[in-house]
Amino acid sequence: MGYFLRGIPISRGIAIGRVVLRHDLMKNIRYTRIEAEKVMDEIEAYQKALETIRQETLVMREQAQQRLSDKNTSILDFHYNLIQEDFFQKDVIKRIESDYYNALSALHYELSLLKKRFEELESDYFQARFLDIKELANRIAHVLQGGVVERPTRENPAIIVAEEISSAEVLHLEKGAVQGLATESGSTTSHAAIIAESLEIPAVFGIKDLFNFIKKGDTIIVDGYKGIVIINPDEATVHSYEQLQRNYIAQEEANFHLINLPSRTTDDVGITLMANVSNSMELNIALRHGAEGIGLLRSEMIFMQNQRMMNENEQFDLYREFLILFSGKPVTIRTLDLGGDKFLNNPVHEANPFLGWRSIRIFLKEKDFFKQQLRAIMRSSVFNDNVKILIPMISSLSEVQQIKAILQECIAELKKEGRPFNYKIPLGIMVEIPSAAVMASTLIKEVDFFSIGTNDLVQYTLATDRGNPNVSEYYQPLNPAVLALIRLTIRAATAQRKPVSVCGEMARDPLYVRLLLGMGLRIFSVNPAYLPLVKSILLKSSAQQTKELWNTVKKLKTHEEIGEVLREDLKKHCPEIYDSYFYEEER
Amino acid sequence: MGYFLRGIPISRGIAIGRVVLRHDLMKNIRYTRIEAEKVMDEIEAYQKALETIRQETLVMREQAQQRLSDKNTSILDFHYNLIQEDFFQKDVIKRIESDYYNALSALHYELSLLKKRFEELESDYFQARFLDIKELANRIAHVLQGGVVERPTRENPAIIVAEEISSAEVLHLEKGAVQGLATESGSTTSHAAIIAESLEIPAVFGIKDLFNFIKKGDTIIVDGYKGIVIINPDEATVHSYEQLQRNYIAQEEANFHLINLPSRTTDDVGITLMANVSNSMELNIALRHGAEGIGLLRSEMIFMQNQRMMNENEQFDLYREFLILFSGKPVTIRTLDLGGDKFLNNPVHEANPFLGWRSIRIFLKEKDFFKQQLRAIMRSSVFNDNVKILIPMISSLSEVQQIKAILQECIAELKKEGRPFNYKIPLGIMVEIPSAAVMASTLIKEVDFFSIGTNDLVQYTLATDRGNPNVSEYYQPLNPAVLALIRLTIRAATAQRKPVSVCGEMARDPLYVRLLLGMGLRIFSVNPAYLPLVKSILLKSSAQQTKELWNTVKKLKTHEEIGEVLREDLKKHCPEIYDSYFYEEER
Repeated sequence: MGYFLRGIPISRGIAIGRVVLRHDLMKNIRYTRIEAEKVMDEIEAYQKALETIRQETLVMREQAQQRLSDKNTSILDFHYNLIQEDFFQKDVIKRIESDYYNALSALHYELSLLKKRFEELESDYFQARFLDIKELANRIAHVLQGGVVERPTRENPAIIVAEEISSAEVLHLEKGAVQGLATESGSTTSHAAIIAESLEIPAVFGIKDLFNFIKKGDTIIVDGYKGIVIINPDEATVHSYEQLQRNYIAQEEANFHLINLPSRTTDDVGITLMANVSNSMELNIALRHGAEGIGLLRSEMIFMQNQRMMNENEQFDLYREFLILFSGKPVTIRTLDLGGDKFLNNPVHEANPFLGWRSIRIFLKEKDFFKQQLRAIMRSSVFNDNVKILIPMISSLSEVQQIKAILQECIAELKKEGRPFNYKIPLGIMVEIPSAAVMASTLIKEVDFFSIGTNDLVQYTLATDRGNPNVSEYYQPLNPAVLALIRLTIRAATAQRKPVSVCGEMARDPLYVRLLLGMGLRIFSVNPAYLPLVKSILLKSSAQQTKELWNTVKKLKTHEEIGEVLREDLKKHCPEIYDSYFYEEER
Repeated sequence: MGYFLRGIPISRGIAIGRVVLRHDLMKNIRYTRIEAEKVMDEIEAYQKALETIRQETLVMREQAQQRLSDKNTSILDFHYNLIQEDFFQKDVIKRIESDYYNALSALHYELSLLKKRFEELESDYFQARFLDIKELANRIAHVLQGGVVERPTRENPAIIVAEEISSAEVLHLEKGAVQGLATESGSTTSHAAIIAESLEIPAVFGIKDLFNFIKKGDTIIVDGYKGIVIINPDEATVHSYEQLQRNYIAQEEANFHLINLPSRTTDDVGITLMANVSNSMELNIALRHGAEGIGLLRSEMIFMQNQRMMNENEQFDLYREFLILFSGKPVTIRTLDLGGDKFLNNPVHEANPFLGWRSIRIFLKEKDFFKQQLRAIMRSSVFNDNVKILIPMISSLSEVQQIKAILQECIAELKKEGRPFNYKIPLGIMVEIPSAAVMASTLIKEVDFFSIGTNDLVQYTLATDRGNPNVSEYYQPLNPAVLALIRLTIRAATAQRKPVSVCGEMARDPLYVRLLLGMGLRIFSVNPAYLPLVKSILLKSSAQQTKELWNTVKKLKTHEEIGEVLREDLKKHCPEIYDSYFYEEER
């Protein structure tokens, strides 16, 4: 059946196609010297390669600017400027002259020296810049080795296989051209992952030792549902995956017709279906897919795409754009959730960043910046008075109290300045740290709504990094303790008649949707591409029947048993979805 | 009052004294060239420095072997062997000859090359070895700079200030000579931390930018209770700290007289006071301090001190020694808790090791090795049939089921081999992951006892790495959610009449002891040095009265309010302990 490898499922869908490999050419290089009389030729070849890359960068930048609405092409500007620097223009050439290295060896040698210098600076900022320089060096190395970096096109599509999707590669992700992605590293929350998902490009990351198994010319299957890659599959396997792909596409199309129907269960309970978005592209998909509001606007992703902090007025302009597009509908803006694995320029180095200085913990120290964001959001409420503020990473009541005090300061300031805004802007918190779930009934009295971040909640409750392939079997959303904490949170909010949504990935997984409904969840917030799928399940479900499902599940003791019950339930009530998404894994 | 810095409290007690600085001499070096005719002199000076260090290493090794019962001097053997290597004997000398560098520059240059080579190997093992080489290079650099590495002695004691306590330094920790420790990095679970605590040397780690504030000749106060360092304190501050130190010593002596009294509360409820131990030195302290058993034998620490895995027979010999010393008393052996921040030779590099592949997660994959340890423990039960097996890092019932199946295999094998052992050896689990606490009533039915690891439980429940100074304010054992999970766990076990202990640091903090008693805890397991202190509090406490304390606390919503109530309670019921341990922080 072909060679079978397992990674982390990043973006659903199935891709079958030829691979384009992205080796790190600056790794494991063999140093080569040339004869003295060849030095001038070598320098010329190197300069020619530089010029090729300079031209290519110009073209890439132009194309990216045309395609991407958010003009996020700063990485290419950076590459373009880098080419002019002494490092590439002089240092490498001098090294060829002095040491008779060939251009590739000289490039690698200088890169190693640079790396050492950057390390000595001990600045995380420069370490990140070094990665950009290495990426550019890699592009030059490709040209030197006579290769051009093959970029899949719509006419000649392919699956990209890389150690990690580089920031330049991200800009070229285009549905139809890039059929799929498979990488050795990379996390579910990386920029590449989010873009792949919003473009519906099937992707599997975190496949250990992928490059040991794959070679140029191979055909692979990328199964983004199960996080599986099959190298050189046999005909029967290709055939069955093609069938799955057809089912899946048919299913998607069928679901798409539902988007204008009201979201009600079979027993007429109203459901709200909202979207999680990170940028204006996703916002447009959300509108097209019938989102009834934005349940989660990840403000940090907008900042990250701009690679810098933005001041109050810049933020105000930005939020305005989002709010006008969704005018009259709720828009929940989450304050910056940086740290962990998401950084602007200057990551703090910590042994366990997910347990470290991230998110609201940063902003309770950087109070001025936090106030800028709160003020910008509040000011933007004149364009849509359904805007809400959502605070991530809450672990205690004390933090909520601090935040409310800061919010009051902002309100007082804005009033004094005579600026118009919604004085009663709702304030909610993410329930994603176990302590917040345990204390839900205390916390809900202090805030206006809850949003359950199941990804982090599962991660902390089970002490399992979801991006770490070594422990993926321990990341189990169906662990009874996780379900108990979610249920506790939903009950605490509904007892106070306050809204509670799930914005984590559980809300869009076909296996969990009916269970969450049965647990009392009435607001689902999912990545826009999943809206039709989730709706199709909810429209076929009864709130009362799924409550019975939860009553069965809550008596079970292991995630294996619970998974079995949920698969049986889905098979019974939504057979067509079951068939598309839960085909047998081992064939 | 002097300059005031804050870090992580590692080992309690107060030290006042002069500092001995341990700079990293291989950092920020200024490259210096010498004249051609000085080359031979420079080489001679370097060789002399090498010889000095060789001799010093021999002496250090001899002294360490005499002092340390566990002969844990392998790092010095390694240094001794390293000195003979080409790197130090030839490469550095060649570099002086070829580049006219002075010895220090040449040493640094070669070290940088070596570092690069080691990095290219991409082996974590070699990265760790590189740190040892760097440490040796640092010792040589000290001699080259005309300095001798000043080692505090009993006659001339001092407080050691370092970026991190090196493995060679750890061997020299001797009470009376080293008055205290203050470092920029280092965690509560490091080898240095554990040795410092068992030797009762006051220590504060994780003090940011310490070296920016301190210089040679400074006097400092190390306050190991509060995690504070005061540089060049004024007379009044020194005076008040001296008073505290006297109170503290007097208190310790008073407590020490209690060790032979039975552990009963004032209303005659029996308490069991056990010890957490990591090596035979601590085992002896535990015996002297009246431990009624070993509540936690950290088997990984024994392995780490030997820097390698041990086979079944070696483990058997080792456990036998421990079990005979404590014959007739319970001894709880925790299976290897490696990973996270504890490694033998080959750390796995993970983005968030505390949420990664550690502890039982490793051994459910490395089943053969796990069985070796289980077999060794079971076989050792002939020397003390009170031995128990404790499994760390349990997050689900499925893991417990897997472990019980493996245990059954071992029992069947040992029976078949005709080996004598306790067939009914009790199996318990650590409750340290939030899911285990939430599911406590399910899990307790499958095992014989619980041990609550509050350090990790707090860490995961609040998503806060306790070793990270950036977020130390978020590590709050008194967060109501943490207390609720502890209470849930204690109730689940007592409802089934099964033993439950706390072996985390909460069990030995004077502020928490009465609260835990009130929550129904009857078994406290603490580092041996703390046994008299904990006992002194319990002997003055009433189970009924402290239950009222818990009833008050459980209604409170923030750790600040709870802390206030506990401080008032301790002041009222144990005023002398309150005075010794909870002096006002800001003066």
